[in-house]
Amino acid sequence: MSGTPPDASDDPGFAQVAIVGLGLMGGSLAAALRGHVKTVTGIARRQVTVDEALARGFVDRATCDLAAGVRDADVVILATPVRVILRLLNEIGPLLPPGCLLMDIGSTKAQIVAAMAALPTHIEPLGGHPMCGKERAGLAAAEATLYRGATFVLTPLPRTSPPALARAREIVQTIGARPLLLDAARHDRLVATISHLPYLVACALVATAMHDGAEEPSLWQLAASGFRDTSRLAASDLTMMLDILSTNRQAVLRSIASFQKNLADITAMLCHMDEENLRQTLKTLAERRREL
Amino acid sequence: MSGTPPDASDDPGFAQVAIVGLGLMGGSLAAALRGHVKTVTGIARRQVTVDEALARGFVDRATCDLAAGVRDADVVILATPVRVILRLLNEIGPLLPPGCLLMDIGSTKAQIVAAMAALPTHIEPLGGHPMCGKERAGLAAAEATLYRGATFVLTPLPRTSPPALARAREIVQTIGARPLLLDAARHDRLVATISHLPYLVACALVATAMHDGAEEPSLWQLAASGFRDTSRLAASDLTMMLDILSTNRQAVLRSIASFQKNLADITAMLCHMDEENLRQTLKTLAERRREL
Repeated sequence: MSGTPPDASDDPGFAQVAIVGLGLMGGSLAAALRGHVKTVTGIARRQVTVDEALARGFVDRATCDLAAGVRDADVVILATPVRVILRLLNEIGPLLPPGCLLMDIGSTKAQIVAAMAALPTHIEPLGGHPMCGKERAGLAAAEATLYRGATFVLTPLPRTSPPALARAREIVQTIGARPLLLDAARHDRLVATISHLPYLVACALVATAMHDGAEEPSLWQLAASGFRDTSRLAASDLTMMLDILSTNRQAVLRSIASFQKNLADITAMLCHMDEENLRQTLKTLAERRREL
Repeated sequence: MSGTPPDASDDPGFAQVAIVGLGLMGGSLAAALRGHVKTVTGIARRQVTVDEALARGFVDRATCDLAAGVRDADVVILATPVRVILRLLNEIGPLLPPGCLLMDIGSTKAQIVAAMAALPTHIEPLGGHPMCGKERAGLAAAEATLYRGATFVLTPLPRTSPPALARAREIVQTIGARPLLLDAARHDRLVATISHLPYLVACALVATAMHDGAEEPSLWQLAASGFRDTSRLAASDLTMMLDILSTNRQAVLRSIASFQKNLADITAMLCHMDEENLRQTLKTLAERRREL
């Protein structure tokens, strides 16, 4: 599991990788990188997580001591909820060696990239966001294949050097993901619609079912795969989602308004039983969805 | 595949089953029943469907001739979209032998049960609705295991005799589903929330993404499993869905209004960043969803 592949020593530039946060995303990242870089060091808040990461063979080394964990790192990746990343960016600068690539994999990017801009100049910062995940949070749900085939957004800063960006791309490719360069603000607008809105829609759907189910408990016996899939995201990790919503509020509110308008348009056609327009609208949407 | 199990001849009461409509649902029903009853006769509009059902071994006999297909049936099951069922109920009565159990598996029940009430008295009618399906329509997507483990709603009429209801339960259990008795109007209210609303929500989500994606095509590269699952139902069979919406309009409109209210409540908390109420609300919803 920890065997060193032949080319790892060819690129000592990212030989030593430290990952801060060993939940679902950080743990999976460690597992995917281990054996493909010289060492993977895991840094977690709790000793039990450190022990589990070592026991599962996800890391070469692990510690609860942030300063000790990042001291010799060529690459440091912050893999905590967004608001913890923002706190870490306030304190981590002086702990990092010169030339260190500092990435994160937080779900919103504008506030993080703004905080990265204020880091000491000896650091190479860069934002990242892999488009993958699961409802189950925590290291227990982590797996080395999580990133495989996923789009991995990279949001470089004006100060990010071409070699640092190239190194980040290499890490993304090493874990089997596809790098996609985006401006941070643009990323946040797009994920508001494609990721944060679906979460809130799933939540509102569960709320509606709970309301009806309170009067008619047999409602839940009628829940088939359609309801299950549409509502699945409502079970997402709450800490992660609250950090996302609070750091991408304006874009999310804009996406909700657009969604409400679209639902109201469809509702109006149904209300007046304007079947030809309803058919044409729903047909276009079905075709677009099938293309995915 | 067509072997007769030892007990089939013990109950000649439902020895001969005719299924009208050999799409996803009717084809799967035929496949699940074949070998467990004396004969399964499939009735389809097009000869190519008749040929395919015979070739795949889903039926013992198949025909495009409704009158010939149902003439000797002990049980007839209508497995077409709802508005076709309503048309069939207008014409099928005189074609059925005395004592014949006439079921349907349409997705809405109030209008169908009302039409069944007007059938000639020599028929035993009963509404049904299995809570399972797939996006892909048609016989090509059919499979004998589709109904396994699903809740199968039965909506008897006042005129439905206890032996007829018992026979319907037996059919449901034979295909591996769980019968659940419900009043037709109550069924329609519940599926409006648990099934028809999720479809429209998925449609409005795809519409919102299409709008943003028209300006920013990279949006679609960011679509991960969360968006895919939440929007999956938008690809549902359009004919089936339009029949459902047009025959359950009032209940669906009521569910949409309730959903819009719930989404607006969550949006207001986000708008004012009322984090404690937002956390408590989303926590309750996540817990309920995880119970499913």
